[in-house]
Amino acid sequence: MSPLADLDRAALRAALDEAGADAWLIYDFRGVNPVAARVLGVSGMGTRRLFVLLPREGELVAVAHRIELQGVESFPGRVVPYARWEELHAALGLLVRGRTVSMEVSPEDAVPYLDRVPSGVVELVRRLGARVVPSGPLVSRFAARWNAVEIAGHVAAAEKIAAVARTELARVVRSPGTTESAVQARVVQALREGGLAFDHPPIVAFGANAANPHYEPVAGHDASLAAGQVVLLDLWGAPDAGVSADQTWMGFAGTNPPARVREVWTVVRDARDAAIAVIREAARAGRPIAGYEGDRAARDVIERAGFGEWFVHRTGHSIDRDLHGSGPHLDDYETHDDRRLGPGLGFSVEPGVYLPGEFGIRSEVNMYWGPDGPEVTPREPQRELITA
Amino acid sequence: MSPLADLDRAALRAALDEAGADAWLIYDFRGVNPVAARVLGVSGMGTRRLFVLLPREGELVAVAHRIELQGVESFPGRVVPYARWEELHAALGLLVRGRTVSMEVSPEDAVPYLDRVPSGVVELVRRLGARVVPSGPLVSRFAARWNAVEIAGHVAAAEKIAAVARTELARVVRSPGTTESAVQARVVQALREGGLAFDHPPIVAFGANAANPHYEPVAGHDASLAAGQVVLLDLWGAPDAGVSADQTWMGFAGTNPPARVREVWTVVRDARDAAIAVIREAARAGRPIAGYEGDRAARDVIERAGFGEWFVHRTGHSIDRDLHGSGPHLDDYETHDDRRLGPGLGFSVEPGVYLPGEFGIRSEVNMYWGPDGPEVTPREPQRELITA
Repeated sequence: MSPLADLDRAALRAALDEAGADAWLIYDFRGVNPVAARVLGVSGMGTRRLFVLLPREGELVAVAHRIELQGVESFPGRVVPYARWEELHAALGLLVRGRTVSMEVSPEDAVPYLDRVPSGVVELVRRLGARVVPSGPLVSRFAARWNAVEIAGHVAAAEKIAAVARTELARVVRSPGTTESAVQARVVQALREGGLAFDHPPIVAFGANAANPHYEPVAGHDASLAAGQVVLLDLWGAPDAGVSADQTWMGFAGTNPPARVREVWTVVRDARDAAIAVIREAARAGRPIAGYEGDRAARDVIERAGFGEWFVHRTGHSIDRDLHGSGPHLDDYETHDDRRLGPGLGFSVEPGVYLPGEFGIRSEVNMYWGPDGPEVTPREPQRELITA
Repeated sequence: MSPLADLDRAALRAALDEAGADAWLIYDFRGVNPVAARVLGVSGMGTRRLFVLLPREGELVAVAHRIELQGVESFPGRVVPYARWEELHAALGLLVRGRTVSMEVSPEDAVPYLDRVPSGVVELVRRLGARVVPSGPLVSRFAARWNAVEIAGHVAAAEKIAAVARTELARVVRSPGTTESAVQARVVQALREGGLAFDHPPIVAFGANAANPHYEPVAGHDASLAAGQVVLLDLWGAPDAGVSADQTWMGFAGTNPPARVREVWTVVRDARDAAIAVIREAARAGRPIAGYEGDRAARDVIERAGFGEWFVHRTGHSIDRDLHGSGPHLDDYETHDDRRLGPGLGFSVEPGVYLPGEFGIRSEVNMYWGPDGPEVTPREPQRELITA
């Protein structure tokens, strides 16, 4: 059944109001737009262009190629088939002429996750007589929200991941000589045994390798642990067809971390907690809060401590059914994400400080905005470095 | 090693001339642009925006996020790291200001396979002072071309696929009562045993189901073969890291197909051969030929026979390392593809006639433009319906 079958039309109207649009025009071609898959639940080969119009009032309309009508068999609205390009243009023109339509566009690519429609498609829709505006509020409401089952799945996954991380790090920090790829293999196995799925294997980085935020160990070219090195473990996984949990944990191969490691750990942890606090306080006060404000809160802590130059990525990314989701990010750095955080949305909180040639430290938890407001997973975030 | 390490700069200049550009600007973000993967051979997580400039003269430049420099470690040129969005804009502006750059854009989405860059990215590049023109000739030359190893792999795969199709169809047409999904499962197994990889399982369609060009049998809801039905088998597969072969074969569950089936088969086969002939003749005469001309030749045969209305898709698609490739398609119907066919390019030739409620017939072979001109695979295309 199409997820559109029980589309909440009142919520659609509210999101269209916020977007300033008459209708949401969703485009897909060969999976280019992840929002389409989530909102439409389209299936089939997807080798031809598909447009779906969700208007403020009246029937939903899908414009689909005649050789791929199977994918819209359960579409709860009118299906307009086309074959020749002239038919596509005519059908689309009838739908959009004189209307303001929201599409997955982002002016000057301000937010790449919202910028999903190829340039020529937007040109075409404009030439056919529509005004095109960004669909941010619609994406947050209909593509990025977690439902109750997804919340429960994420929460359980988060506890499993935290347990794997604590167990593995406690072992590693006592095992100088072990390799990054050996640790990675053990974590992969533990995640699989926990029933968690992931596209990329976890990040395991020792010492200076941890100063590369997306380090990927390669067996045979990876590091062996030396006493006195930090150990970074970034691991993630999703329950069946659910929402991933994504965490980073830090260890130290020794009993007594040097002052600089302790200082950076404290700054990073406090930055993480500052982002969490500003979001919770806004929710409690009923004050609207945008993604960039979470980044600002964490970044302020790190900048005040003098490490701002070494915090080279956003504070967090949206998580929906995609690990890097379509909702608002905690970002006032790589982009200025002014989309609002709110009910049903989830994201990572993961500030880091990366000192090239020395070491890097990141601490990552997740938040989701549940029925009782913003919650943190796992239940017990890391407070202190895991030491030998 | 980056495939750019042995970039043919003379060929780049020639393709830039044809495109009317000073440089090729390749954009990728989370795999949105398949051309980037093929040309750059980028690896890693790809969670941040990447721009690569291939200029007419001088050094190649990659603008990559600081947390993903691992993916450009082997880049044979200058790497400009960025972290904040202001740094990205500044670096990109220095590269493109005042230049005409080719990007994967297609005006009004004329050719969706060439329209890969999100609208906001093109806006940004224009605002930074560049003129943006389509990269068609560059994509054909550098992304869609097969090398000698790929040609050999494809040719071998094509013979395997033809053998599977002939064997299976000869069996099916004698086996009324068999189901589409049972045939599909046997073909899947035979392809796997042949060492061929595929994303989607083959299409098996009996009788009226064959009138749906992208029919997908679903076990439990699929048809059982009745005597007197046509059988359509569309199967494809790639050798290891190579180029797919993609063929459609037709059978008839009986010994004596009715006149209408025979007529449609003959028209479709002759349409296929007309497209092959026009391409071969152009090559022989040294006359440039564009993708749409292959479609026109096939479509003329079907239209003259009075079945034009029922040929509802293009005649063929580009094949490169993607089954639906980035090169020119044989298409004067879904799009007007005026890109030139030429050395190194491969594509399917697959006209069809689909009579809703009755039956459908498609015949599909592949062509590649090798050192001796355009060649057809498999060596012996289907001449007559396979009957009981």
